Amino acid sequence: MQGQVVANMFFEPSTRTRSSFELAAKRLSADTLNFAPGTSSLTKGETILDTAKTYLAMGADMMVIRHREAGVPHAIAQEMDRLETNVGILNAGDGQHEHPSQALLDLFTITSLLDFEYPRLKLLADKKIAIVGDIVHSRVARSNIWSLTASGAEVHLAGPPTLVPQEFAEYVQGTGELVETSHGTSGAGEKKENFSQPSIPNRRLFLHWEVEPALKDADFVMTLRLQKERMTAHLLPSLREYHQRYGITRDRLKLCHPGVKILHPGPVNRGVEISSELMDDPEFSLISQQVTSGVAVRMALLYLMGSGKS
Amino acid sequence: MQGQVVANMFFEPSTRTRSSFELAAKRLSADTLNFAPGTSSLTKGETILDTAKTYLAMGADMMVIRHREAGVPHAIAQEMDRLETNVGILNAGDGQHEHPSQALLDLFTITSLLDFEYPRLKLLADKKIAIVGDIVHSRVARSNIWSLTASGAEVHLAGPPTLVPQEFAEYVQGTGELVETSHGTSGAGEKKENFSQPSIPNRRLFLHWEVEPALKDADFVMTLRLQKERMTAHLLPSLREYHQRYGITRDRLKLCHPGVKILHPGPVNRGVEISSELMDDPEFSLISQQVTSGVAVRMALLYLMGSGKS
Amino acid sequence: MQGQVVANMFFEPSTRTRSSFELAAKRLSADTLNFAPGTSSLTKGETILDTAKTYLAMGADMMVIRHREAGVPHAIAQEMDRLETNVGILNAGDGQHEHPSQALLDLFTITSLLDFEYPRLKLLADKKIAIVGDIVHSRVARSNIWSLTASGAEVHLAGPPTLVPQEFAEYVQGTGELVETSHGTSGAGEKKENFSQPSIPNRRLFLHWEVEPALKDADFVMTLRLQKERMTAHLLPSLREYHQRYGITRDRLKLCHPGVKILHPGPVNRGVEISSELMDDPEFSLISQQVTSGVAVRMALLYLMGSGKS
Repeated sequence: MQGQVVANMFFEPSTRTRSSFELAAKRLSADTLNFAPGTSSLTKGETILDTAKTYLAMGADMMVIRHREAGVPHAIAQEMDRLETNVGILNAGDGQHEHPSQALLDLFTITSLLDFEYPRLKLLADKKIAIVGDIVHSRVARSNIWSLTASGAEVHLAGPPTLVPQEFAEYVQGTGELVETSHGTSGAGEKKENFSQPSIPNRRLFLHWEVEPALKDADFVMTLRLQKERMTAHLLPSLREYHQRYGITRDRLKLCHPGVKILHPGPVNRGVEISSELMDDPEFSLISQQVTSGVAVRMALLYLMGSGKS
Repeated sequence: MQGQVVANMFFEPSTRTRSSFELAAKRLSADTLNFAPGTSSLTKGETILDTAKTYLAMGADMMVIRHREAGVPHAIAQEMDRLETNVGILNAGDGQHEHPSQALLDLFTITSLLDFEYPRLKLLADKKIAIVGDIVHSRVARSNIWSLTASGAEVHLAGPPTLVPQEFAEYVQGTGELVETSHGTSGAGEKKENFSQPSIPNRRLFLHWEVEPALKDADFVMTLRLQKERMTAHLLPSLREYHQRYGITRDRLKLCHPGVKILHPGPVNRGVEISSELMDDPEFSLISQQVTSGVAVRMALLYLMGSGKS
Repeated sequence: MQGQVVANMFFEPSTRTRSSFELAAKRLSADTLNFAPGTSSLTKGETILDTAKTYLAMGADMMVIRHREAGVPHAIAQEMDRLETNVGILNAGDGQHEHPSQALLDLFTITSLLDFEYPRLKLLADKKIAIVGDIVHSRVARSNIWSLTASGAEVHLAGPPTLVPQEFAEYVQGTGELVETSHGTSGAGEKKENFSQPSIPNRRLFLHWEVEPALKDADFVMTLRLQKERMTAHLLPSLREYHQRYGITRDRLKLCHPGVKILHPGPVNRGVEISSELMDDPEFSLISQQVTSGVAVRMALLYLMGSGKS
């Protein structure tokens, strides 16, 4: 990809996603431009669309965008289409909405452990995957729910009611699919207008307010980062109590299928989402593999987006 | 320019100029070093000249310098001469003084639209160019006044009296040239000591406190960024009133020559200097072309400065 | 070193060391990743070891680490050994502990001026070197004391009692060697547990509370940066008084051996550690050569660490 320019536009703090995209671009010999909001014209009041158009005019072939507002990468992509450019827009995480490259690297990490014959339509058929933690605020959860159920897995969400609210079941139902909750099956919800969540036929998704039914016989456990700010917002009594009720520990892991593996998008609060020693145990933890997969998957994404050009 | 080192030393926030120079350097295969004042030894009290000498000693072949104080790049260049180095110093904007690469890219953007035979001494003879807005605080205006009048254009400055003060006419007159104002022609001013503004013979420069006489039959309109801080300083009643009296709108554009084009150095305050829809209208707006020209012009500048070396 | 990844992890402000390592890596054609703590996951509470493991998993071959806490690079190196990786860890300055690449570049700068036949065991035999200033808080001093005495030089430390305390003599004695102070020779101290300071046989190290005995017949004078925060902490009466008693001036230099040279790790407080005009005098000052040596020495370090890999 020599001569192609990848603009990394991270409007939010990030170590791994930013570095991962930057390294992916460098490994493909693309030129990178790093956008640092603190030293940029955003402090002068320029709109985000105008910033994107500036990078377009400079010759950026791809923009990797993270922003705290849901929909920003989408809005930039629409503007780029309207201007009839063929610049590639990659969503590197937008608010609480989506984090698609994370879901793809998680899927790649999981499926690279599995043994099956190609072609196979449903890569994760017969697999049970538990996603545990702060579901409602997590773009990682949203993107994974989409990719994992679409790949045929049975996905079980678990967390305290404040972080896995009944409304979230309805939000998912809004796409027209059956969702069961361990506290009563909801009828098919009315189809609601929502962002850009496509409908997946026959998806199997379950909600729990205890962690144990989610972990039972699970093949993979995905823990999510618990943001400490949630406590201030009175959504949690304490980190200690959260760990006692929902933290992944060696004891709780006995409920899972033998050979269960643990994922975490990072950065980890050790001793909160997961016990510190379990995080470091290579028998269970896939956390390092996720980071390694991240560079490979992002190289693939950049390459695919760039290959339309010459 | 493989093996040559370009140090980007931006002591002030910048999206487009910094990225533009960085991309220009990368396109020429030069190595770049980015200087971020927030994480640098400046927080430890080092002088700017010593910082520059540090980059020199590391092997920087060129330094691209932006600073909030007028004259900083000049002072560094003098020091580099005194030390008998052949490092190249590029002024990327110094205080309210000069922004030469911006004026060159503006000139390149304008002349690339014109149709004439080479060689031609006065590229912009018979062209009228209006520069509208906060003239007195603008390094972009100062550099453009110099390059546009030197290229033979008739340049008309327009803005409220607080932003285009009578003193500014005298400052320009200080170089010994005739300046007319729509509120009375000044006699030839006394030659004053001033920074590094060379004298241009026969320059044609006019000042107005209303926008209409500047726009009348103009071939190009250059709008300048209005810094919102000016309002706090009581130089402006309100942004809304500024837009009503001086903002470039589709209506006001009718005063201009047919085929008039609009420039803006960015970042733009939409709806203040220029109406939002006009900014996006490719029939009139050259704003994207300016950004694109910026990379090309800066590549040329780096190449010319670097070609003295091997 | 094409394809190798150097992660520059600077948790503390730095102009020269960070840029020096970055340029060294680029000159060797390695890919660099710059870690900026302000925009990173550290703001989300990730531990430093986990940040390092993230860069490891991304494929970093080397990590260049600066941190305000002594021992952080060592702790990361231990963790990397425990994980049986062969990633290289370079200490770019840890707290008040060590700054080994600075000591190596100082040694390289000094020895490149000397004329001797190879092989020679004690490069600096018969040389007297004065280190003047804030010894106790300086990682540069600690690393240089080690490398210079190991190279056979006679090293004289000088500074006010608050910055060269008696305890420092005991700390050095803790390694089992003879230390003389100009205010009475201490008996051989008890061997104490200390960080990672190896013992050097026959080292010749002297402490003084006045600058004159240290400068007398010195071949090299190394001045140290005086951090202005020391004054607030009541360790110094005033910068002015410090300069009067310990500042390196043209007059004081007459005490030294003819042909004496001055070093300073930078950034310099002009007129405090050293008079401004002396700093700029190429007859005496090696400050620019130190910066130039820095890039070469760091290239060598990266190359040596990287050559175990292919």
